[in-house]
Amino acid sequence: MNPLPGQMMQMPLLISNLIRHAARHHGDTEIVSRRIEGDIHRTTYREAELRSRKFAQALARLGTQPGERIGTLAWNGYRHFEIYYGVSGSQRVCHTINPRLFPDQIAWIANDAADRVLCFDLTFLPLVEQIAPALKQVRHFVLMTDRAHMPAATTLPGLLCYEALIDAEDGDYRWPEFDENTASSLCYTSGTTGHPKGALYSHRSSVLHAYGAALPDAMGCSAADVILPVVPMFHVNAWGLPYSGPMVGAKLVFPGPFLDGKSLHELFEQEQVTFSAGVPTVWLGVINHLKCAGLKMSSLKRTVIGGAACPPAMRQTLEEDYGVQVIHAWGMTELSPLGTLSRLKARHATLPPDAQRALLNKQGRAICGIDLAIVGDDGRALPWDGRSSGDLLVRGGWVIERYFGEAGSALRELDGQWWFATGDVATIDADGYMQITDRSKDVIKSGGEWISSIELENIAMAHPAVLEAAVIACRHPKWDERPLLVVVKKPGADLDRATMLAFYEGRIARWQIPDDVVFVDEIPHTATGKMLKLKLRQQFEGHTLP
Amino acid sequence: MNPLPGQMMQMPLLISNLIRHAARHHGDTEIVSRRIEGDIHRTTYREAELRSRKFAQALARLGTQPGERIGTLAWNGYRHFEIYYGVSGSQRVCHTINPRLFPDQIAWIANDAADRVLCFDLTFLPLVEQIAPALKQVRHFVLMTDRAHMPAATTLPGLLCYEALIDAEDGDYRWPEFDENTASSLCYTSGTTGHPKGALYSHRSSVLHAYGAALPDAMGCSAADVILPVVPMFHVNAWGLPYSGPMVGAKLVFPGPFLDGKSLHELFEQEQVTFSAGVPTVWLGVINHLKCAGLKMSSLKRTVIGGAACPPAMRQTLEEDYGVQVIHAWGMTELSPLGTLSRLKARHATLPPDAQRALLNKQGRAICGIDLAIVGDDGRALPWDGRSSGDLLVRGGWVIERYFGEAGSALRELDGQWWFATGDVATIDADGYMQITDRSKDVIKSGGEWISSIELENIAMAHPAVLEAAVIACRHPKWDERPLLVVVKKPGADLDRATMLAFYEGRIARWQIPDDVVFVDEIPHTATGKMLKLKLRQQFEGHTLP
Repeated sequence: MNPLPGQMMQMPLLISNLIRHAARHHGDTEIVSRRIEGDIHRTTYREAELRSRKFAQALARLGTQPGERIGTLAWNGYRHFEIYYGVSGSQRVCHTINPRLFPDQIAWIANDAADRVLCFDLTFLPLVEQIAPALKQVRHFVLMTDRAHMPAATTLPGLLCYEALIDAEDGDYRWPEFDENTASSLCYTSGTTGHPKGALYSHRSSVLHAYGAALPDAMGCSAADVILPVVPMFHVNAWGLPYSGPMVGAKLVFPGPFLDGKSLHELFEQEQVTFSAGVPTVWLGVINHLKCAGLKMSSLKRTVIGGAACPPAMRQTLEEDYGVQVIHAWGMTELSPLGTLSRLKARHATLPPDAQRALLNKQGRAICGIDLAIVGDDGRALPWDGRSSGDLLVRGGWVIERYFGEAGSALRELDGQWWFATGDVATIDADGYMQITDRSKDVIKSGGEWISSIELENIAMAHPAVLEAAVIACRHPKWDERPLLVVVKKPGADLDRATMLAFYEGRIARWQIPDDVVFVDEIPHTATGKMLKLKLRQQFEGHTLP
Repeated sequence: MNPLPGQMMQMPLLISNLIRHAARHHGDTEIVSRRIEGDIHRTTYREAELRSRKFAQALARLGTQPGERIGTLAWNGYRHFEIYYGVSGSQRVCHTINPRLFPDQIAWIANDAADRVLCFDLTFLPLVEQIAPALKQVRHFVLMTDRAHMPAATTLPGLLCYEALIDAEDGDYRWPEFDENTASSLCYTSGTTGHPKGALYSHRSSVLHAYGAALPDAMGCSAADVILPVVPMFHVNAWGLPYSGPMVGAKLVFPGPFLDGKSLHELFEQEQVTFSAGVPTVWLGVINHLKCAGLKMSSLKRTVIGGAACPPAMRQTLEEDYGVQVIHAWGMTELSPLGTLSRLKARHATLPPDAQRALLNKQGRAICGIDLAIVGDDGRALPWDGRSSGDLLVRGGWVIERYFGEAGSALRELDGQWWFATGDVATIDADGYMQITDRSKDVIKSGGEWISSIELENIAMAHPAVLEAAVIACRHPKWDERPLLVVVKKPGADLDRATMLAFYEGRIARWQIPDDVVFVDEIPHTATGKMLKLKLRQQFEGHTLP
């Protein structure tokens, strides 16, 4: 019961409003894409919005209905961008699939989502031909290319050409108005155990996230920016940049499949990119290229790094050698994805550089719209003292309430409010800066104290002979669990157990030093490059600690 | 009918979430106020939020109900800030009244709003005592001070002390959750004709405005900022800064009633203010003080100037002499208030400085969430060519749908959508930059062409002998209307009709030059300092053009 309604215009928060705003107020602003074919393609927001509307018309002509899922297997490019808007704007659901997953996982996900149409880049034609027999609900396959690049022969029944679909429409289509809580897009998490689960975003949650993500203390996006999202559009909507960019009228630059350091640096320079975003691995490639070729960055001012913790050395190199400010971020698929970003407050301006860096190396502060809490083993809230470490909970308007297709809520209760348990273990300090110390299933519980596997891995990684390191919990009769270090040595490097363990002395509290080291040829990974610690734990289940 | 709802957390957009976010994530960040008493008071978001909750408890104890209006007559200060949140957060409506209006207008507004409680600063005790007999619905008068400053005697029945009310509560109060479309606050326009009309904001519209206003191309607010809103909290919620500030965790500095150049400069320097916002008149005072006293600005980086057009010379002085970036803005009470701000796009970076300034001197581009249109006399949309001038229409989630207490909509239709007619006349260029050329009721319609009264006034104002100038329409047998220039000369200055008209030669098209000049001792103004052109038109209704 509303005692007195406000008297403001009722306008639903719809994703189509973002592209309409860009087309009207930033119509000539460019969208530049490096195509699969290798050439550079240029369009504008005005043109992209028109083509999005044509794609919406095509979807209706293909017989798809509001609420149905349209799958994509595609790189960052203007056609993928148009599909984002054409699908969501016409009240269908844009389901971006990670093409780096194993083929049977991709088929499983497309079936779970009941995708009616599958749109894909030329790159993925063989992949789609391979899995097509298993795709039970797909009625139309759309190759995201022009007529000239259509294959002479294919096993796909009735393969459609994206440009032919667009050409057949007149664009006489007005974006429909509907309930802002309607599903807009779907993204599956790349779970390290079990089947992937889908996060089903709404128009409202996506638009609120776009506002939050564009704020100065988050991505800080403006029309003065040229934005190159390295993070893929199949990876949690490229962290929302295809929404925040049009919202503020930034020029967009899409790198296509060319994510190596040389290709990226070329695009940064040619298009005078000011802002980018990607995972640490990508920046490693860029830095290596810059170093080897003796190059500089002439326009890039800042980048968001997330998806995995940004090594402090990477920040230092980008900031000091290349003048690129690093903004450390944390999020997850279930958060659309942005939760926290690390930026200083006014009163930190006078801190010594080391203290500033220590803050900036944390995962950062919550964007308004997201709240954080940490809880201990007893499920009760822990203090924000920068030391107490517990399960990280979040709540907010761009956090999932349940997974796609599941009947039960994904939330838990704390102090009379509902929260999503992230599966991360973190500390929060008095200023609200959050730092991830572990994944909750990877933390080592030794005699009632928690030991961070990430911290132990970071130390091992700093040893010059270590290529990769994982720390897992091993059963222990007295302490319950104790850390075991699993190491892959660099080719030809010499390293033994005693030397490795001695390396920890003085770098961490004595009781946290691993009890043992095992050397292996390889650490198992998921398709998205995350270490499969579950497999490691199974492998070393019977390992006897000394 | 929603074909597929998204599966995200349902969290209403409530104003209480802003202060709760600030208290949790920026608890130690300061709110600094210069009090009526002249001293400096310091508090924090944590403390302010607690006191807001206590004030919410006090409102319940006083017997007020959700939906009821609580009036304020107050300067910018921490108590006014606490009342904003205590009132809106508890589902009551915060009705800020402009104390600069005439007493009978204030009484009329308080009665029209049916204010149940009236909170006011010490400054306004005599005013409230004067109008109290006319206030029919007010049940409680609250003086916003401590016990020591309560008057020994007053004619106000049962006058309450704000600090005593706060002290009586325990703060054991949780912000309620309710429909985000509930009314949050009420602000009356200072109409130049007829009675003022109220804009009744909702929680949703206020929070969306706070996100939009904090974006980099709008106010650009962050936790690295120290914000001093010169624009009063009784003037369209200080342009939303009491909402955007807590949203991003900025330090807030409130100047109280001391808005002269010297007092403001002192606060800027003492508190190391980085961002401010106010009308041109205030900046005139600041600039004069800086010039006379030979002072500089050591921390202020940028300011938003709006409420009236910012003279280009003011921008130049602030930017070139004092290093303060000027952001020209346009808005109105009916827009919460922000509509457009002037910021360059990426491709303007290479324009010559003069061309950049020409863009920045316009009122700017729409924030995403606001759309613009201009229409001609026939009610049809005009092109965005930077030349075509027409009635400015707006639509968006923080635009009013109707005025408080009115049954009919304030909107009109254009191309199947609903729009609010601003009463301004404007051009929009191809890049979306809007420039106000007139108020629609002030424009001069000469032979089917529109002549901008503002443009003619600006030229007259540039003459060294002119103190103030107004241009109004005079009936003309052939051209329908022709411009008449009304001038107040500077004391002792010499200026005649012919010299004044000759001054227009070469500065504007021949046919736009006023037909006549009349010299007067004074131009009538409203209480908020706007020229009363209606009165002027009545005064010169029978004027015969030569």
